[in-house]
Amino acid sequence: MDLTLGVDVGGTKIAAGVVTPAGEIVARDRVETPAESASAVRAAIVDLVRRLRETNDVKAVGIGAAGFVSADRATVLFAPNLAWRDEPLRAVVEAAVDLPTIVENDANAAAWGEFRFGAGADVDDLMMVAVGTGLGGGVIVNGEVIRGTFGVAAEIGHMRVVPGGVLCGCGQLGCWEQYASGRALEREARRRATEERAAGAGLLGVAGGDVGRIDGRMVTRLAEDGDPFCIDLLDWLGRWLGEGIASLAAVLDPGVVLVGGGVSTAGDLVMEPMQRAFSEHLPAAGNHPELELRVATLGNDAGIIGAADLARYPAGEVAAPTVTAGAAGLRGGSPAAGGEVS
Amino acid sequence: MDLTLGVDVGGTKIAAGVVTPAGEIVARDRVETPAESASAVRAAIVDLVRRLRETNDVKAVGIGAAGFVSADRATVLFAPNLAWRDEPLRAVVEAAVDLPTIVENDANAAAWGEFRFGAGADVDDLMMVAVGTGLGGGVIVNGEVIRGTFGVAAEIGHMRVVPGGVLCGCGQLGCWEQYASGRALEREARRRATEERAAGAGLLGVAGGDVGRIDGRMVTRLAEDGDPFCIDLLDWLGRWLGEGIASLAAVLDPGVVLVGGGVSTAGDLVMEPMQRAFSEHLPAAGNHPELELRVATLGNDAGIIGAADLARYPAGEVAAPTVTAGAAGLRGGSPAAGGEVS
Amino acid sequence: MDLTLGVDVGGTKIAAGVVTPAGEIVARDRVETPAESASAVRAAIVDLVRRLRETNDVKAVGIGAAGFVSADRATVLFAPNLAWRDEPLRAVVEAAVDLPTIVENDANAAAWGEFRFGAGADVDDLMMVAVGTGLGGGVIVNGEVIRGTFGVAAEIGHMRVVPGGVLCGCGQLGCWEQYASGRALEREARRRATEERAAGAGLLGVAGGDVGRIDGRMVTRLAEDGDPFCIDLLDWLGRWLGEGIASLAAVLDPGVVLVGGGVSTAGDLVMEPMQRAFSEHLPAAGNHPELELRVATLGNDAGIIGAADLARYPAGEVAAPTVTAGAAGLRGGSPAAGGEVS
Amino acid sequence: MDLTLGVDVGGTKIAAGVVTPAGEIVARDRVETPAESASAVRAAIVDLVRRLRETNDVKAVGIGAAGFVSADRATVLFAPNLAWRDEPLRAVVEAAVDLPTIVENDANAAAWGEFRFGAGADVDDLMMVAVGTGLGGGVIVNGEVIRGTFGVAAEIGHMRVVPGGVLCGCGQLGCWEQYASGRALEREARRRATEERAAGAGLLGVAGGDVGRIDGRMVTRLAEDGDPFCIDLLDWLGRWLGEGIASLAAVLDPGVVLVGGGVSTAGDLVMEPMQRAFSEHLPAAGNHPELELRVATLGNDAGIIGAADLARYPAGEVAAPTVTAGAAGLRGGSPAAGGEVS
Repeated sequence: MDLTLGVDVGGTKIAAGVVTPAGEIVARDRVETPAESASAVRAAIVDLVRRLRETNDVKAVGIGAAGFVSADRATVLFAPNLAWRDEPLRAVVEAAVDLPTIVENDANAAAWGEFRFGAGADVDDLMMVAVGTGLGGGVIVNGEVIRGTFGVAAEIGHMRVVPGGVLCGCGQLGCWEQYASGRALEREARRRATEERAAGAGLLGVAGGDVGRIDGRMVTRLAEDGDPFCIDLLDWLGRWLGEGIASLAAVLDPGVVLVGGGVSTAGDLVMEPMQRAFSEHLPAAGNHPELELRVATLGNDAGIIGAADLARYPAGEVAAPTVTAGAAGLRGGSPAAGGEVS
Repeated sequence: MDLTLGVDVGGTKIAAGVVTPAGEIVARDRVETPAESASAVRAAIVDLVRRLRETNDVKAVGIGAAGFVSADRATVLFAPNLAWRDEPLRAVVEAAVDLPTIVENDANAAAWGEFRFGAGADVDDLMMVAVGTGLGGGVIVNGEVIRGTFGVAAEIGHMRVVPGGVLCGCGQLGCWEQYASGRALEREARRRATEERAAGAGLLGVAGGDVGRIDGRMVTRLAEDGDPFCIDLLDWLGRWLGEGIASLAAVLDPGVVLVGGGVSTAGDLVMEPMQRAFSEHLPAAGNHPELELRVATLGNDAGIIGAADLARYPAGEVAAPTVTAGAAGLRGGSPAAGGEVS
Repeated sequence: MDLTLGVDVGGTKIAAGVVTPAGEIVARDRVETPAESASAVRAAIVDLVRRLRETNDVKAVGIGAAGFVSADRATVLFAPNLAWRDEPLRAVVEAAVDLPTIVENDANAAAWGEFRFGAGADVDDLMMVAVGTGLGGGVIVNGEVIRGTFGVAAEIGHMRVVPGGVLCGCGQLGCWEQYASGRALEREARRRATEERAAGAGLLGVAGGDVGRIDGRMVTRLAEDGDPFCIDLLDWLGRWLGEGIASLAAVLDPGVVLVGGGVSTAGDLVMEPMQRAFSEHLPAAGNHPELELRVATLGNDAGIIGAADLARYPAGEVAAPTVTAGAAGLRGGSPAAGGEVS
Repeated sequence: MDLTLGVDVGGTKIAAGVVTPAGEIVARDRVETPAESASAVRAAIVDLVRRLRETNDVKAVGIGAAGFVSADRATVLFAPNLAWRDEPLRAVVEAAVDLPTIVENDANAAAWGEFRFGAGADVDDLMMVAVGTGLGGGVIVNGEVIRGTFGVAAEIGHMRVVPGGVLCGCGQLGCWEQYASGRALEREARRRATEERAAGAGLLGVAGGDVGRIDGRMVTRLAEDGDPFCIDLLDWLGRWLGEGIASLAAVLDPGVVLVGGGVSTAGDLVMEPMQRAFSEHLPAAGNHPELELRVATLGNDAGIIGAADLARYPAGEVAAPTVTAGAAGLRGGSPAAGGEVS
């Protein structure tokens, strides 16, 4: 059995796992993301790979990183949360562990994981909307990751949804990420708790009376307990998600959209308003067949599983593995012969 | 030489041409789009095909229509300007002229024409932005038209750019088409001429003093003559185009964007502000390699040429012709063997 | 003892009372405002006056009407809720009951009542903000009603506070009345109950699940019972009131502002946010002595008492009674000799 | 002949004049406003008064200052452009020159000058709108300056017209002054010249290509020369003026509004759009008699003349001189006996 190793590099933790061709994780490990420097992050990744490798015979390494990744899957061009600029991650890891390595955007990796083994295993096309602290995306068309000419496609969180809107970490104003992400939820919760002092009293109480300590987790927990103020906040988030997906439906026309990431754990509290807002904002509704909105099923493992699976295909190939023989065959567990790591 | 026939069905005219495998139009004809009914449009198309066929040995027919086309390239689901709903256009035309026929969205057809024989002939990926009365789009990734699960991808004009903005014909508010199209230009020109009566006096004069008679053509002509009010209007249009393309760059990351359609004839008056606004609004600029903005080169023929060329591939295939042998080969004039109409 | 008769003509009821020089009502009566026609309203007023007069020796009649009243206090120029246009009310009533009569704007009358016998009895200058279904005002400077050149001053509800805002009954957009009145509260409550479905569930329940049946009374009652959604709605209303009063403080610089009308019954639920918003929005705060915000004390009687008291001064005088001998004297209960009805 | 001395203290210059009871200036002098300190401004005022006094037998001094003045006309509470806070200007000047002195807000002084000897000499009520660098106001009702309880009424420039709008020097957002003043014109001109580069080319040229050097004077001059971009800018300014005056008409209902200050020199280029916007935005138009908009006639002398005239009435009186005997008499040149400086 050919095992590969997947690494998911986020702003707060680095998680790795050894993955079977069937998408099962048979060993795993994780560390906190070092805050100090780009090189410390690099070292932590290499260290994780080495440790897991000691006891597992892995053939290749796939790394999903929260950032812009070059089209040749070698370099992290820009990763605001990791202080990386033009980080030659593939070369670094290959030199250190002597295994074929590919680097992929983390949301692309998660989309691929879901596409191969999760909520999208039955379709050829999908869009993944990964709602964590930020808002990432992955698009799969005809069984291939749409990576874009420069490797940075599916940065859906940076589609502008409000001209002159909230400042985004990318330097622009009004990006979707500022209205549909954990960070956005937190900002709106704080704003409303200041404006609507009676209804927000419960949330403020949980935050010890300090509006600046309100976070998304508190909102979700209170909403699950029935707090109407927090339920409406998740409703707000869900509606922004649904409205943005309606725009993307016009651009990409996917048949299935998977919603993953931390916020998706809130379930119907987010999914129901998202579905409603999507249906209301779909252009030419009535005449546009309506895509299916699904919750992703692999949870936080999607990135590890997807990265590990993508590593089965030679790093030298610029294009994603083409599903020549039909997506069904690929997903059955037997990826196209030519592209496979032997 | 295998000739095919391309038809471009717009809201005001239906144009058809007989096209060589090298993308040359060797015969052409056109009629005004009948206003009366869906069946009259249908009849006009059949009539055009029959006439051109009499003197040209065509093997297949490709029709580009301004509307939502089903993924199997057979049915026009929705075409607001043609009063079509679920129009089985392929079946109708095949029954009438006994030639293999495919139906394609008009902007997709134009994108394909430019990709094969025009401004995009040197690249594998591109996005076409067709700025006519409305705003259409076509996306080509790895040498294939991205058609979407339901066939209606690349309806980029219906990406929402202003929440609660101007009402669009699709039933939604704030679609990009309402800010970046000939119709948008006209609306803005009328609004400004009412608000800014001194600067707009020249334009108003050309419209005979009747603000309701101002149209986009007047604006373009006056701008070319140096009228600053009209130059600023095209600047406004160009900026909205550039800002929207910046969002699409985040989603699709194309290497090349072609701008075509009537408005593109205004040249630098639109292209220069578009380029500037794009660069200013590209998320994570500096760290995002910058795509190339080009003017489309086939002009109004792009749709005919593209539709005719797409007709070379059997209508039964849902997917666009895959560029297995490398885009260069395909574009050299010898499309992949298997997919070709013999 | 000289008694006068005050009539308060509102959109839903006409209330009248016989008033002593000390501002006490010694007899009263009321009827519903006839809906059918301007003449029916006129007849109802005359009827009320006649009935009260039978058992009380009144010397004059003062009528406060919800509308624009001419500077000579004779004619109601415009009363949208009463279907009056250029209604010669003084002439009509004088002819019918043979008593000197004056007509005054209802909020001016209420302001005068409060100034003479209520919450403003200790000051020379005040502004009354009457928050009922609509938003009216009365301004008293140096002991005189500021009536304006045409008689229609202090229509503070029609100061524009939001350019392009909510359409007002006066034909303009964004009038303060659309953000700070019972009607505004109702509209906002309905909007929020639609947007914030969890938090608004209590209010919606009271309205029987029909958002269109929500009214201001429900909001106030639930807020008093501790419903946070409704508390925040009154907070919203209070803030709009406070922000508008900050603008009026810049224009009129009153020392005291009285808040009356139905909404004022909500007490601190409105007054507290109003005070806070006022303080936060007062231009050049720190350097602008801060006026005192008070709740009016005469309640619904303010209009009757004020109108009756104003009637003590000859109708022929265009100006309001001048406080020649000093406001203190006047307010002691002995109005300036020359102006009094003997 | 009793002469009095008027001083107009602005942010850039201090102008003084010796004024006859008929409102004529018989001697004048001016200096630049010292930038260094509050005491330097004080010294400059005293110096000017002393110099003019040497050759003119003046009985009293009136000082109009750009700032908030206390109700007893003794202290400048706040003058942002003069670095004054609680400046006891009356006491300082009286101690230095031994003449009865009063201090008045400069726009109030100008309003009084126009009321007595200028464009308002035929009416009892008026509102002055003084459009200079900032936006000041003066209100006269029944022949008295409406000074407010704390002396700071008629600060009409700080009525809020755009919630969350442009930051004002008073610390608030969206004050009318930020949309209808010389400073507002300058800001808008710079903004538009950046946005509308073709139409604004003429203005930018006059500013030497540096958008930051554009000022209101350039705009006015070019507009007078027919530059449409600048004409539209004055149109914009005029419309904001007219719209704000419509709100003030609802609050104060003056019969006449005088427009003075530097911007008023642009004449019809501002007055015409102002009149139009006022008429369009007057609440309940049709049913609200329409006030008369006039250009002030005393120009920059209004403040000197008004301050000098107000000085004829003892400083100890808090109230403005009451027009007991009828405004006509007062204005005939013979002010009410009791109040006069003998």
